[in-house]
Amino acid sequence: MSTKIAPLSGFPEWLPAERVVEQAFLDVIRETFELHGFVSVETRAVEPVSRLLGKGGDADKEIYGVHRLAADADDKDADDPDKALGLHFDLTVPFARYVLENAGKLTFPFRRYQIQKVWRGERPQEGRFREFTQCDIDIVDVGELAAHYEAEMPLVIADVFSRLPIGDYRIQVNNRKIPEGFYLGLGLTDVVGTLRIVDKLDKIGPEGVTELLAAAGATDEQISQCLRLAEISSQDTSFADRVRALGVCHPTLDEGLAELTAVMEAAIAERPGVLVADLRVARGLDYYTGTVYETQLVGHESYGSICSGGRYDALASDGRTTYPGVGISIGLSRLLAKLIAGGLVTATRPTPTCVVVALGVEEDRPRARAVAAELRSRGIPTEIAPSAAKFGKQIKFADRRSIPFVWFLGADGASDSVKDIRSGEQVEASSDTWVPPAEDLHPTLQRVEA
Amino acid sequence: MSTKIAPLSGFPEWLPAERVVEQAFLDVIRETFELHGFVSVETRAVEPVSRLLGKGGDADKEIYGVHRLAADADDKDADDPDKALGLHFDLTVPFARYVLENAGKLTFPFRRYQIQKVWRGERPQEGRFREFTQCDIDIVDVGELAAHYEAEMPLVIADVFSRLPIGDYRIQVNNRKIPEGFYLGLGLTDVVGTLRIVDKLDKIGPEGVTELLAAAGATDEQISQCLRLAEISSQDTSFADRVRALGVCHPTLDEGLAELTAVMEAAIAERPGVLVADLRVARGLDYYTGTVYETQLVGHESYGSICSGGRYDALASDGRTTYPGVGISIGLSRLLAKLIAGGLVTATRPTPTCVVVALGVEEDRPRARAVAAELRSRGIPTEIAPSAAKFGKQIKFADRRSIPFVWFLGADGASDSVKDIRSGEQVEASSDTWVPPAEDLHPTLQRVEA
Repeated sequence: MSTKIAPLSGFPEWLPAERVVEQAFLDVIRETFELHGFVSVETRAVEPVSRLLGKGGDADKEIYGVHRLAADADDKDADDPDKALGLHFDLTVPFARYVLENAGKLTFPFRRYQIQKVWRGERPQEGRFREFTQCDIDIVDVGELAAHYEAEMPLVIADVFSRLPIGDYRIQVNNRKIPEGFYLGLGLTDVVGTLRIVDKLDKIGPEGVTELLAAAGATDEQISQCLRLAEISSQDTSFADRVRALGVCHPTLDEGLAELTAVMEAAIAERPGVLVADLRVARGLDYYTGTVYETQLVGHESYGSICSGGRYDALASDGRTTYPGVGISIGLSRLLAKLIAGGLVTATRPTPTCVVVALGVEEDRPRARAVAAELRSRGIPTEIAPSAAKFGKQIKFADRRSIPFVWFLGADGASDSVKDIRSGEQVEASSDTWVPPAEDLHPTLQRVEA
Repeated sequence: MSTKIAPLSGFPEWLPAERVVEQAFLDVIRETFELHGFVSVETRAVEPVSRLLGKGGDADKEIYGVHRLAADADDKDADDPDKALGLHFDLTVPFARYVLENAGKLTFPFRRYQIQKVWRGERPQEGRFREFTQCDIDIVDVGELAAHYEAEMPLVIADVFSRLPIGDYRIQVNNRKIPEGFYLGLGLTDVVGTLRIVDKLDKIGPEGVTELLAAAGATDEQISQCLRLAEISSQDTSFADRVRALGVCHPTLDEGLAELTAVMEAAIAERPGVLVADLRVARGLDYYTGTVYETQLVGHESYGSICSGGRYDALASDGRTTYPGVGISIGLSRLLAKLIAGGLVTATRPTPTCVVVALGVEEDRPRARAVAAELRSRGIPTEIAPSAAKFGKQIKFADRRSIPFVWFLGADGASDSVKDIRSGEQVEASSDTWVPPAEDLHPTLQRVEA
């Protein structure tokens, strides 16, 4: 093949040792989601482009279209916008479609998790990829969705993160009814436009926001109030009093404050300190209608959110029935890019293999196969040396892969033996009884503190 | 959203209970691959189209191109054939590229497994999809690859299948040097053309093959010999004598017979009866150069191969160094489409949840959360009733999901209790000690015999 080999910007791939870290994370995430009773769903990678364009603001800029290179002349689908296909850019839009398509075969409230790749044609940057893995949980119900699920989402995430070496993190939570009611109470009727501007606070600062709001017709007093609201955050429920102290009244604001207070109370009871009510969080122009979440790694706040989501009331509707939902999504690729590229988490070895069976002469391969089969039958990952070689070469083979044990077949009826190549200790062993120390059986993760 | 909801032909999706079956298969496949020391690799979904077109015969007909819907005017990549991207149609071509790209960072022989979706724009048929999951293992080495790996591949698969409820199967093995040497010995110099015709034997029968070979210029004697070779199969190594009895001689034929004999001998020693030497197997026009594999479900032979592969000597080469390899791939989507759609395998429940904590009054939710957290911390998947309700409704909630246990919080200081809703038996229980029977902890698979 003549094509030059080069990485594609925005399409990261892991080396084996890095993939071990990713798999360990995936295993913990899945296991924890399942412990909380979430059902696994996978959806196809493609959706009709018209569906992808339906919600999510200017998502059209990010969509990858898909077409058969050898489309027949009679393949009319490619030109039909309802049939043209694109790669999904998140897992929520496909999940909403899945719920509508299978509503009669699902049980509600439906708790599902979904761990898949998604694609966005954005310009790649640090922590922002064109292909990346998302780990979502959502709960949807028919007609109405109980508010307690809005408190449950970040608590599930906190349970996941308590089992992973990600360091300190903070889940910020807000309720979109708060800025909405607040803006309406202030007399700012273009809620979406105002949200869109205030959402840029981190990027353009208070001066920039002031300028844009003024250009949109807001008064100085309205602008100051918007900025004061965005500055409020608390690890307890005191945010509500601080909002009320601003003197703005609106029934939607009251609703939002009550809902956010309930979420914070539940979180404080179960995992104090993990959640922060932060009234600046808006989640852009997404389909969210109530509680919204973002998550920062402490010390890496400028890196952006590594776990986000919120409540959506209207995403899944077939015109007659609506399925409101709430969900949250771990941006696994973004999280790992920080932890792995930053050298913060490593794996003890780049292979599952725990034992290499050494071969002194090629004629021993059938015996080696029998030993390996016996060890594997008891759950011990084992491979056989690629070729017969001297002692030192066999040790080196294992050492280069950080495989802890080398197995030696006994000669002339003598017992087999196994050597821990780290300590050099070698002991007699039988393949039907020997077990490695539990911590050596599989590769494990190590947190490296800077 | 107005888009009509309808399944996309060729893009299958599972319902939750079916997905439980798929996940159980994926877990066993991964675990067994890792027990054999294969390292996990994932590659990006896209490759340059020029690379996808480089090998694999007329694969161009099957490729899905990918393009940004909102490509900028300055996005020149879309028109550059070396930069245009397509979805991968298998995992071998991307893996070969990964090896070349990372050769300096890998250890050889490199044993890797890869479980991912692939895409082909083919017309969907029974067991043939446009998006499907493949589970590959490959071993590649630098310059030369030891022949014993050709025997190892099907034995790993046999170990996987021994742990899965797939029923009887048969792995057919051949060596492409056998027909190649045989045809050359017969004086048929267009080896690829002859292979291509004989490969249609199952579809068009001996008469059809005779007609095509005659049209290509073969004599009656050459045609008879080709058909005789294709009829040979054996579960032992007797195939070699039957080939030699046809009286054709060529050094490549001798090589092929010796290699296939070695593969069969190793398989018979370890798993007698699993491998069949079948000299008709050719694996189309792929990149294979030696041993090739196909696998049939016994009783469903016409369904096609559910696990295929072979040895390739030239797929991964950067011009200076060549990385020969051998691999085999389980067509998981095809296998499951037969087993699930045929009702041959089912899951005991469509959710991971083992216990539902019942709620008599909403005020008990914090207590229920504490019980659920305790059970989960000991590995028991638990969810809490969505709303406070009477006893019967809580039982029904669990029953509809086939969740085996309902947990009742004790009132007024009384002990909690847990009910097996299948037997009706209810016992006092404490959330820090109670464990369900091992077979109820997670959903399991059941083989349904017709």
